[in-house]
Amino acid sequence: MSTDVDAVVATRGDALRDRLERVEQRLRAIAAEAAPPLDRLAGDTIAAGGKRLRPLLVLLAAGEDPGDDAGLIRAAVAVELVHSATLVHDDVLDAASLRRGRETVWAAAGRARATATGDYLFARAFAELVANARPDELRVLSDASSALAAGELLQREDAFDSGVSVARYLHRCELKTARLFEAACRLGALEAGAPVDALGGFGRRIGLAFQLLDDVLDVSGPVERTGKPRGTDLLDGTVTLPFILARERDPSLRDARPSTPQEAQAVCDRIAATGALDEARERAIAMVAEAKRELPYDDDALLLVADSVVERYS
Amino acid sequence: MSTDVDAVVATRGDALRDRLERVEQRLRAIAAEAAPPLDRLAGDTIAAGGKRLRPLLVLLAAGEDPGDDAGLIRAAVAVELVHSATLVHDDVLDAASLRRGRETVWAAAGRARATATGDYLFARAFAELVANARPDELRVLSDASSALAAGELLQREDAFDSGVSVARYLHRCELKTARLFEAACRLGALEAGAPVDALGGFGRRIGLAFQLLDDVLDVSGPVERTGKPRGTDLLDGTVTLPFILARERDPSLRDARPSTPQEAQAVCDRIAATGALDEARERAIAMVAEAKRELPYDDDALLLVADSVVERYS
Repeated sequence: MSTDVDAVVATRGDALRDRLERVEQRLRAIAAEAAPPLDRLAGDTIAAGGKRLRPLLVLLAAGEDPGDDAGLIRAAVAVELVHSATLVHDDVLDAASLRRGRETVWAAAGRARATATGDYLFARAFAELVANARPDELRVLSDASSALAAGELLQREDAFDSGVSVARYLHRCELKTARLFEAACRLGALEAGAPVDALGGFGRRIGLAFQLLDDVLDVSGPVERTGKPRGTDLLDGTVTLPFILARERDPSLRDARPSTPQEAQAVCDRIAATGALDEARERAIAMVAEAKRELPYDDDALLLVADSVVERYS
Repeated sequence: MSTDVDAVVATRGDALRDRLERVEQRLRAIAAEAAPPLDRLAGDTIAAGGKRLRPLLVLLAAGEDPGDDAGLIRAAVAVELVHSATLVHDDVLDAASLRRGRETVWAAAGRARATATGDYLFARAFAELVANARPDELRVLSDASSALAAGELLQREDAFDSGVSVARYLHRCELKTARLFEAACRLGALEAGAPVDALGGFGRRIGLAFQLLDDVLDVSGPVERTGKPRGTDLLDGTVTLPFILARERDPSLRDARPSTPQEAQAVCDRIAATGALDEARERAIAMVAEAKRELPYDDDALLLVADSVVERYS
């Protein structure tokens, strides 16, 4: 994604590069403000980084000349803090040792510290956005956060459930992923006075496509790209679109419940053999196309972000 | 505490009773708004109730005629939601089966659901307060929430640490308990245009005293009053003021590390024998006296709340 960010930055130039750097600085400063050991744990979480796709969407949705960009930076920081908080809690619940190739807070510091780190990052997200003095922005962030918690739960409710429908799967992706992408775009638009609903709709669709393709990647690999073994979702019991579609095509997959990484990889191969991955990819690509149509104006940078969501997985 | 609430209500009459009831209704409605199973889990958490001391402080700090009391109700609800979220997460971290004599969400529904329930309640707290469109109020709540997370962590950092000082213990109580009491009073004051710092100082001291006396009760019992065996903190490794003071008076307690409820009760008896409980109680009573002096005006209801904090434990 870093190449993609470079390409996006190239369309917008130094102002965007400068804003992204200020987002990083502020994220680091917020971690450093905490008392030990929270400063280190929050700092590690933030440093582990990832793509900063959500802050990028906040900045881009505000257009080229967002006016007072201090508020925009705060919105971008707040969205990334909510995202980071969710990841830390997810790793606790999944007892996940690695994320993005690094040891998770859960693995490094244990359950209690990781839960508290997530709570802290979450609280700081609201503290950051409060400074914008915009209740409409705070509502966007708190609604997205409620959705995240509901999605987090739904994923575990549906674990190992062979009856999960495509509609229910999409609803979960909506809660767990798309709503925060939507919130990112809405916040940028609100700061800049840009069309909020249209940009929000763009973000929502990009988020859905992002999650769908992430779920495809869990089945397709390769490991070198994902940094985790294929079939992790199958082992966790997370029922994703490729598996739902594959079960329709090959009913013998209904009873597949792998319990070792080897078995999971074998099920991945069987899912791939049904053609379900292609169908899931096509659905995601169609969503990205819809997202682009949703844009109220042509915007090279946002179009590029939309494409990069697809390209990461092609 | 319910008798105390009745006594407080008697000083303020039907308007207060009506507001407390509206807080309850709104808390129930927020739980019911969630998708299953979150509605039930959040509803159970809220129904488990407790004393509603924090919402009461919000309402009382606003004085007798708070003007638009819709905003006040929302502030009271938001504070209780943050408190509930913290309790749910605490129970997850402590693997606690019972709270207030009821099964915890963790025990009833497991770690994942309980973590998500806490996250949801937390997000809803901010969503509720956002409707007041008061950035100053949101800052109060988000700062208190950050403090709670930091306190949550500090408690676990210091677990089983024989070097915890009184100052460090008080700092933890400040973060973990006093800051939300302070926030409750500040929010009520902000809604009503009452003196914010003075009422906040009152709340902070009451909160500190409340935590100190809670920690005394864990050692002194009796079980019939606390609903939990004596010495729970000792078993969890939570180093509290009675234990710190007792270790100074009886150095042989420094190595006390009970591992069974029976052993913990024996250590409680040894702590009590040093007189440390009396000293801890006296410190708490002095804080309540200070809190009362902090009040910018005589207010029968707030004075009664201050006394009730002490009386619960006498």
